[in-house]
Amino acid sequence: MSNSDFRWEPGKKVHLSELDPNDTNAHQERDEIELNMARLRERLEALQNMLYAEKRQSVLFVIQGMDCSGKDGVVKHALGSLHPQGFQVTSFRTPTEEEASHDFLWRAHRATPAKGMIGAFIRSYYEDVLITRVHGTIDEVETKQRFKHIKHFEKLLESSGVKIVKIFLHISQDFQLAKLRNRLKDPTKRWKFDKNDLVERESWDEYQEAYEDVIKHCSSESAPWYIVPANHRWYRDWAVLQIAVATLESMDLTYPESDQEFDEKLLATLQ
Amino acid sequence: MSNSDFRWEPGKKVHLSELDPNDTNAHQERDEIELNMARLRERLEALQNMLYAEKRQSVLFVIQGMDCSGKDGVVKHALGSLHPQGFQVTSFRTPTEEEASHDFLWRAHRATPAKGMIGAFIRSYYEDVLITRVHGTIDEVETKQRFKHIKHFEKLLESSGVKIVKIFLHISQDFQLAKLRNRLKDPTKRWKFDKNDLVERESWDEYQEAYEDVIKHCSSESAPWYIVPANHRWYRDWAVLQIAVATLESMDLTYPESDQEFDEKLLATLQ
Repeated sequence: MSNSDFRWEPGKKVHLSELDPNDTNAHQERDEIELNMARLRERLEALQNMLYAEKRQSVLFVIQGMDCSGKDGVVKHALGSLHPQGFQVTSFRTPTEEEASHDFLWRAHRATPAKGMIGAFIRSYYEDVLITRVHGTIDEVETKQRFKHIKHFEKLLESSGVKIVKIFLHISQDFQLAKLRNRLKDPTKRWKFDKNDLVERESWDEYQEAYEDVIKHCSSESAPWYIVPANHRWYRDWAVLQIAVATLESMDLTYPESDQEFDEKLLATLQ
Repeated sequence: MSNSDFRWEPGKKVHLSELDPNDTNAHQERDEIELNMARLRERLEALQNMLYAEKRQSVLFVIQGMDCSGKDGVVKHALGSLHPQGFQVTSFRTPTEEEASHDFLWRAHRATPAKGMIGAFIRSYYEDVLITRVHGTIDEVETKQRFKHIKHFEKLLESSGVKIVKIFLHISQDFQLAKLRNRLKDPTKRWKFDKNDLVERESWDEYQEAYEDVIKHCSSESAPWYIVPANHRWYRDWAVLQIAVATLESMDLTYPESDQEFDEKLLATLQ
């Protein structure tokens, strides 16, 4: 993966099998980047404060990846230093009866971040062109339709000041197996194990292809996909933290202006 | 404040003016407790993991206090290490038109934490027996009625496995003034300043009395109020972290049981 900022060029065909999930861009150890992580966290917190104060824009992280790719973990370890008041995480699971009786974007729309807020979707409306497609619940015509709906939906959010950051956590099949085994063995992780993951695992190649299509077709200059090698958790966290900081840096955030003369007069009266 | 666990005995009359907001229980410095904070955070994260895995109970922190008492800050600095996926913060502001057209508990009810989740309310339905009472929007009869509604509402939540932790952040009037001045002077904090806070400040004594009433009347063995001295932020954070850990420790959390024989057979097939 030569692209040091992890951003996948919109519209370009991706071959996931050619991208190394073990890649750490020549960094050897977590220790090496620890200090840099601390600085990035501090910067991210300062930027979030401005975003929250400004209340003109918002950020939405869409976190996708195969089972065991570390979608939950990245929210804690890369984004966990965000102020909880301004950070809102939504985990999308099998739709409820109410959710399923609406269009596939309905429940996602309700969960989008308000101005000033940072949102993170753990899984998202992208599942509706991934699992449904692999299972054959939707056909190719419907898939293409949904790609269009997603693009229009993301344009709508952008027009309202939402900066969308789509992250695909890229792991290998072997890595997934090791993680699944670990879930079965570790009593503090056993609850995360779902027999169903073994069934989905059988369709590994179909999922990879579905992701390749999504990354190619549902990408734009303003809402690109980022492909993050995720076999090494520390590298994954560093990558996502870098993406987060770069995103907020690009948003021209400023504190709301105040009337200094007014403030000084008021201060004089406050005894 | 002699009570080392900060819990106010339910039904007991409180005289806030007799409780020292500068109290640090003989601790002199933040440094002294830093190591202890780190251990408490680690323990809290482990307990949260169990709560989330178990999905039988939930926790709701209700954070109240005068302007500048540090309600936002305590969520970041005492509870900020919680996994964002299982931690949901709701800030209650002036009711929207839709909210105001329902009973006063409606919007709070919608925001209560689901099983497995930890919620924090920054301000809450308690504002509806505080600001409304001080402003004379509700009379004494209505106030007493609302106390009852609140108690019944909290019992309903408890019956569904929600552990309610109500925290009053206790500051002095001088401390508030210093903070307000600071907001006016610091460009990164100016946006938090609200002229209205100066108006509310005029009613300091009425607010303290309204809080005393709330703490006396809306308290139960299972959902007590905690009074936390908050002039020293580091002590406030330590206190709330201690309360959080003690609360989750008391909930008999366990990981869901698994069928070990089944797991071992499955592991053998996973190559």
